[in-house]
Amino acid sequence: MINPFDDTYFMKKALQEAEAAFEKGEVPVGAVIVVENRIIARAHNLTERLNDVTAHAEMQAITAAANFLGGKYLHNCTLYVTLEPCQMCAGALYWSQISKIVYAAKDVDRGFVAMGTKIHPKTELQSGVLEEEASEILKRFFIQKRNLN
Amino acid sequence: MINPFDDTYFMKKALQEAEAAFEKGEVPVGAVIVVENRIIARAHNLTERLNDVTAHAEMQAITAAANFLGGKYLHNCTLYVTLEPCQMCAGALYWSQISKIVYAAKDVDRGFVAMGTKIHPKTELQSGVLEEEASEILKRFFIQKRNLN
Repeated sequence: MINPFDDTYFMKKALQEAEAAFEKGEVPVGAVIVVENRIIARAHNLTERLNDVTAHAEMQAITAAANFLGGKYLHNCTLYVTLEPCQMCAGALYWSQISKIVYAAKDVDRGFVAMGTKIHPKTELQSGVLEEEASEILKRFFIQKRNLN
Repeated sequence: MINPFDDTYFMKKALQEAEAAFEKGEVPVGAVIVVENRIIARAHNLTERLNDVTAHAEMQAITAAANFLGGKYLHNCTLYVTLEPCQMCAGALYWSQISKIVYAAKDVDRGFVAMGTKIHPKTELQSGVLEEEASEILKRFFIQKRNLN
């Protein structure tokens, strides 16, 4: 039997969140958190709308998932996010002890890998799932933004 | 003329926030954000009460200050915090481009210095203001916690 709930399936859901951010004029990054093939949190970047640098997709998803679970640790959870987490988000994920982080596009300038942010030893990492699609929406956003200014 | 609004004055206000956290059974860390000798945000750690690893004092203070200012950048702001920020909080402070961070006690295990988190090049750093008082409340908390368990 084919399992429709693979990494591509959930990253597509995160990309839908990124599209929602795009439509609001936000840097298009989206995230979902999954437990046993069930999405328990969905979020997209809202830093402009909320005037708040902490309103990254991952931060909102962590808060929402913990709220859903009734506990602050995200054991047995997987985060799917369309862009490599930054220092702040990786730091929050460290505290959450999340089981797995899957990201699509790399952020070679401000991503946690380049910045040297530590991930919790219990957390598994995976990258590159739908990388091209996630990069494309970011490029589209910045081209549109440049043309508007 | 004596200026009553020095670093010690504002760190005492942050310590009052740490005491408020202590009384709620939270790891006692407090923070205030100041612009031109005026406190525009006060917060204390609420990770247990909110079941949310992102509810550190600094994160809440950043959100509250940006809300007060009506903009996401904390230029001309100083954060006073009783414990050295972690990776997450230092990462958020990086995005905020805050002018100055003053912290009291060092966190040699999980603080941003040991973890290697990057601070914004525009941000000035100062440590050690009321370090002893801030360490004392943390020690008192962990001793009480150990005795209760």
